[in-house]
Amino acid sequence: MRHTLAASAAVLAFAAASSVHAEEGMWTFDNFPIARANQTLGTNINQAWLDRVRLSSVKFGGCSAGIVSAEGLVMTNNHCVATCVANLSTQAVNYAETGFTPRTREEERKCPGGTAEILTDIADVTERMHAAGAGLEGQAFTRARDAEAGRIEQEACGGDPGKRCQVVSLYRGGQFKLYTYKKYSDVRLAFAPEDRAATFGGDLDNFSFPRFAIDAAFIRLYENDAPAATPVHFVWNASRPVEGTPVFVSGSPGATQRLLTQDQLMTIRDVVLPMDQLLASELRGRLIRFSEESDENAFIAMDPIVSLENTYKRGLGRMRALVDPAFMSMKADAEADFRQRFNALRMQRSRDAVAAEQARDGGAPIIHLPSEDPFGRLAEIQPIARELYPAMALLEGGTGLGTTPVAGGSQLFLWARTLVRGAQEREKPSAERLPEFADSRLAAVQSGLFAERPVYEDLEQVRMEWWLSKTREWLTVDDPRIKVLLGAESPETRSAQLVDGTSLGDPAVRRALWEGGLAAIEASDDPMIRYLLELQEPTRAIRSDWEARVQAPTDRASEQLAAARFAAYGDAVYPDATGTLRLTYGKIEGSDVPGQRWGPFTTFDGLWDRATGAPPFDVAPKLLAARSRIDGDTVMNMTLSSDTIGGSSGSPVVNEAGEILGANFDSTVLTQRNAYGYDRNVNRSVIVTTGAVTAALRDVYGMERLVEELGAE
Amino acid sequence: MRHTLAASAAVLAFAAASSVHAEEGMWTFDNFPIARANQTLGTNINQAWLDRVRLSSVKFGGCSAGIVSAEGLVMTNNHCVATCVANLSTQAVNYAETGFTPRTREEERKCPGGTAEILTDIADVTERMHAAGAGLEGQAFTRARDAEAGRIEQEACGGDPGKRCQVVSLYRGGQFKLYTYKKYSDVRLAFAPEDRAATFGGDLDNFSFPRFAIDAAFIRLYENDAPAATPVHFVWNASRPVEGTPVFVSGSPGATQRLLTQDQLMTIRDVVLPMDQLLASELRGRLIRFSEESDENAFIAMDPIVSLENTYKRGLGRMRALVDPAFMSMKADAEADFRQRFNALRMQRSRDAVAAEQARDGGAPIIHLPSEDPFGRLAEIQPIARELYPAMALLEGGTGLGTTPVAGGSQLFLWARTLVRGAQEREKPSAERLPEFADSRLAAVQSGLFAERPVYEDLEQVRMEWWLSKTREWLTVDDPRIKVLLGAESPETRSAQLVDGTSLGDPAVRRALWEGGLAAIEASDDPMIRYLLELQEPTRAIRSDWEARVQAPTDRASEQLAAARFAAYGDAVYPDATGTLRLTYGKIEGSDVPGQRWGPFTTFDGLWDRATGAPPFDVAPKLLAARSRIDGDTVMNMTLSSDTIGGSSGSPVVNEAGEILGANFDSTVLTQRNAYGYDRNVNRSVIVTTGAVTAALRDVYGMERLVEELGAE
Repeated sequence: MRHTLAASAAVLAFAAASSVHAEEGMWTFDNFPIARANQTLGTNINQAWLDRVRLSSVKFGGCSAGIVSAEGLVMTNNHCVATCVANLSTQAVNYAETGFTPRTREEERKCPGGTAEILTDIADVTERMHAAGAGLEGQAFTRARDAEAGRIEQEACGGDPGKRCQVVSLYRGGQFKLYTYKKYSDVRLAFAPEDRAATFGGDLDNFSFPRFAIDAAFIRLYENDAPAATPVHFVWNASRPVEGTPVFVSGSPGATQRLLTQDQLMTIRDVVLPMDQLLASELRGRLIRFSEESDENAFIAMDPIVSLENTYKRGLGRMRALVDPAFMSMKADAEADFRQRFNALRMQRSRDAVAAEQARDGGAPIIHLPSEDPFGRLAEIQPIARELYPAMALLEGGTGLGTTPVAGGSQLFLWARTLVRGAQEREKPSAERLPEFADSRLAAVQSGLFAERPVYEDLEQVRMEWWLSKTREWLTVDDPRIKVLLGAESPETRSAQLVDGTSLGDPAVRRALWEGGLAAIEASDDPMIRYLLELQEPTRAIRSDWEARVQAPTDRASEQLAAARFAAYGDAVYPDATGTLRLTYGKIEGSDVPGQRWGPFTTFDGLWDRATGAPPFDVAPKLLAARSRIDGDTVMNMTLSSDTIGGSSGSPVVNEAGEILGANFDSTVLTQRNAYGYDRNVNRSVIVTTGAVTAALRDVYGMERLVEELGAE
Repeated sequence: MRHTLAASAAVLAFAAASSVHAEEGMWTFDNFPIARANQTLGTNINQAWLDRVRLSSVKFGGCSAGIVSAEGLVMTNNHCVATCVANLSTQAVNYAETGFTPRTREEERKCPGGTAEILTDIADVTERMHAAGAGLEGQAFTRARDAEAGRIEQEACGGDPGKRCQVVSLYRGGQFKLYTYKKYSDVRLAFAPEDRAATFGGDLDNFSFPRFAIDAAFIRLYENDAPAATPVHFVWNASRPVEGTPVFVSGSPGATQRLLTQDQLMTIRDVVLPMDQLLASELRGRLIRFSEESDENAFIAMDPIVSLENTYKRGLGRMRALVDPAFMSMKADAEADFRQRFNALRMQRSRDAVAAEQARDGGAPIIHLPSEDPFGRLAEIQPIARELYPAMALLEGGTGLGTTPVAGGSQLFLWARTLVRGAQEREKPSAERLPEFADSRLAAVQSGLFAERPVYEDLEQVRMEWWLSKTREWLTVDDPRIKVLLGAESPETRSAQLVDGTSLGDPAVRRALWEGGLAAIEASDDPMIRYLLELQEPTRAIRSDWEARVQAPTDRASEQLAAARFAAYGDAVYPDATGTLRLTYGKIEGSDVPGQRWGPFTTFDGLWDRATGAPPFDVAPKLLAARSRIDGDTVMNMTLSSDTIGGSSGSPVVNEAGEILGANFDSTVLTQRNAYGYDRNVNRSVIVTTGAVTAALRDVYGMERLVEELGAE
């Protein structure tokens, strides 16, 4: 038996080595392959280094960021503060146009609803979570798990407003970890460049290289109305970057789907991506035309269009990956390898069981493996997922698969949903609620709900009208849910009634309704509130259906696959990205694949060369005016071979010495296959350098006080 | 040898029977399976019946139609005259709103650019065409074929303006036939209902059933400024239709892709449809928002939106078909069967060759089969097709695969292209020109170019702007062709310069430029003409590239497959649809598949029930006002099991007696798989009945004079 085990271990070690490529992986901080990274890169990092990097890394909304001074100063991307900038701007005082350049620290302004978090602790709660779901099926399984997560979070963080606790499912249920964050609810905007300086080339240059964008901005963490003390932080290094330098990128990549089976990927290829992309494309057309109607509309629609085009272009890259024969055959080979190992391990298990029985010594099988066939189970789920996806995505969202925004992302609609559901759910004990309203999550819900954000009714109308009309189209007009959504009205009329009639744009109204609880909600005659009350039955029904028939069985099967994967490959595998802190590594490196050949650096001189004067290839006015002051040879952007994805935006790029060299802000369009698998040949992250940021602060925007704070002179 | 041959024939007969299902097939009139249809339907039609039906069938633009009186009256769909109605309307006098109901024959109005054709003769020219391409490769092959087709057409029709000759490639090059048409260049609008009566339910009910649409209209053929004498015509039968009645549908289905190999279909699934649909979706969004900006814009955009939504929804049905595992495995099985037969026949051929050599009697192989592997050749072409498709579709069009309109369908751009290319091409001998400018085709070119059509600059601007912006996006901004397209301008500025500056909206200007030839074109300072002159190099280059590397080798391989298909299945196979006259047969029948269960009929009472008052479920005002006069039990629409597709719109539905029972106007969304294969279970054509049309003419629109002409009382 030992011999067998030993032999298996040797095989597994080789398997692990061959299953993960050098520089592949968005690793958790508690399972980072230190030795392997040091060996690959020729570096010498250790656990203390990891701890410092972790404590200097910040999650900011859906983005990443890094602390760069002892007084709470944090660098992220400009596109990560775009919503904050839009919220603080009016058409008359439009910081997207002018840049936001406060002369004093006192002029730094609070981002409405902005929060920032630092990961302080990781604890294993796998056993508790697995125990909670044991023996359960369908929605009971999902609910029990959700409730247990809520309990764990509540126990760990209580009502402490300075902390957030989050139970994170890793390896698709293979592990559960409790992440504890120090939380900052007062985040102020300290600097943003002119938007065009950050978005030079617009959507056309997005997801591409060579690139010429100062996509950087600064926020500041506040505590008790004063800048937070942050003694642990990255050291600013604005010297010229060197090709081949080993680097680490620390951030919170949003979501990858690398552990999905081929059957699951086909659902994404055939159903999810086509629907999401087609819907986004029409909304894009509506918004583009809307923005052309007036200067005001152009101002209002700018942020939504940029964000939509980003999502759309990423989706396009993913569609292409899933129909790329070479890439898909690589994925198929990997799955075939895993299936073979999985079957071998199952056979080994039965042989062991037989041997144990023969020996009558009660010896248990050496590896715990499921008796079911999780591959087959996942295949069986796909026709149901394909059938339910459109209704689930359009009416409820939260599939974890797609990008179509419920209600077109209408802020008024989403506030109303939070108010109505929040009131209904808070009537129940925390463990019985929809998980997003568990006690441990209420602080975040309220902070989003009470934030003072401008609401543009015309834009809300475009969003709602698009959503109602597309939902009717995809669910078909005779679907009974459409009667609830529209009654006898057209999408145009219905959305106008709701948007024009609601008072939810007023934060005081939202606060009063939230604090008034269910009684206030049920007594409200606000049309958006009444509407959301009517929608509860059909939207909760599709969610239940999805959870019971798709989510729960998927979770169970994925958990079994995760166990098998650990058994087959050891823990030299990393989990799919889940919007939580990860560390990835690589080198400063250009690209050498056909159609994509370039060195790793661009300079300001390259920017001047590429500019045509016509949007989006017009240089931002202040940047252009500063041309003579800027050293044209300063590196603006660079590429790395590190493994990043959306959500990694703003991630600090750090060298072996713990110095920050730049902020990740993009990757190339070929890199979008990255959602499904890392490909060392084409995977390139795009970085704005600290050198370019220093030049912008000093030579363009008169932000010497920040330059000084960074110690950059 | 005879034994072998006899045995093969028996096998082939069985194969033929199993390869085409009952009621499947868009058959040419010279190869209609009379016996088989009679046997399946229990009818007794013969060659004389076929001839009468053919001579009563009309091709009208991209639609089909049927002659219904001896004085040139023709029924088609309202959506087939929508462009004519739009061209004859102004915002003040909008026939789409009011219906077009001329009280006298003299008030019937000419459709700008409208032509109608009746197929009078079919002759086989396969040998000439095959000989023309023999031994040639690449573009030389394509050009030689095109030139030979032009010569054949010119020889047969000369300059006769009352005829059109067309060499039609059938079975993807397996056969070539010369179709001769009697041509009417004076086509007048005789009746159109209110648009909403024809489009009740709008895009939502499009491609669906139950349906409640009077999608019918009448045109009249004129000769020498008088109604044409049409002694051969369908007899109007407005009696209540009966479920199970055998019917025939005679029309010109546009294009099917049933003979494509799996590899070719994957290109459509992975590249063609996604791109076309995403682009259409964005244009749709832009047009919808445009139409909401003012009543004028709503008027202008109505026809383009309806047409775009129709194409888009059809594409959606096709995308779904190509990812339907059951349907695709049916397709895969059919190909496997064909490949097996193909290989068996090749082996048989070599055995025969050996036997012949042994016998030294000079006996030739019994079946002529290619020595090459056309399946493999087609597979090799696909990566090239995938690479070239976006540029070819966006810059040049005419791939025969997709639907993206060059220049967004801008009328001004397309006129300019015709003028510039026409002038350049007419400098050469007919046989050396681009085939669309061969002598035999010039009459049609001129008729389109000189037609008096309104041009809406705002709409042209939307189209051009969309096209320039999407072409830049898909080809990427650094593609050298984009520099030619845009220079340093943005799509917005560039399109405004062209649309605002051109005089091509004036038909006299177009005529003068056409008649002035190349000298006039080169001397013109019209910006759209100058633009098209600049575009000739890149657009002709991508076309040459596509023809040489995709079209020509595809044509050759397809021709070889066609020969193999005849050998394997006999001539009990029908060619893919090519926009030429076909006859299909089936029964009046509802549907009984999950999610799609309904009887074959709807009535006016059903319309009143479905109406909500909100567009597009508002009953047209005149129709609603006539409610009390209409027998609510009159059948409005019905479904058939016959095999139809886009282009079949307006096709007369005929019974065994040669009586017309209605006009085909649609099919269900599930039927869209029909492009790739016929599925008896789900394939349903949607028909507006003669009974409903009679009621509309008589009870709603006061068109008694037409009712009388139809002999319907």
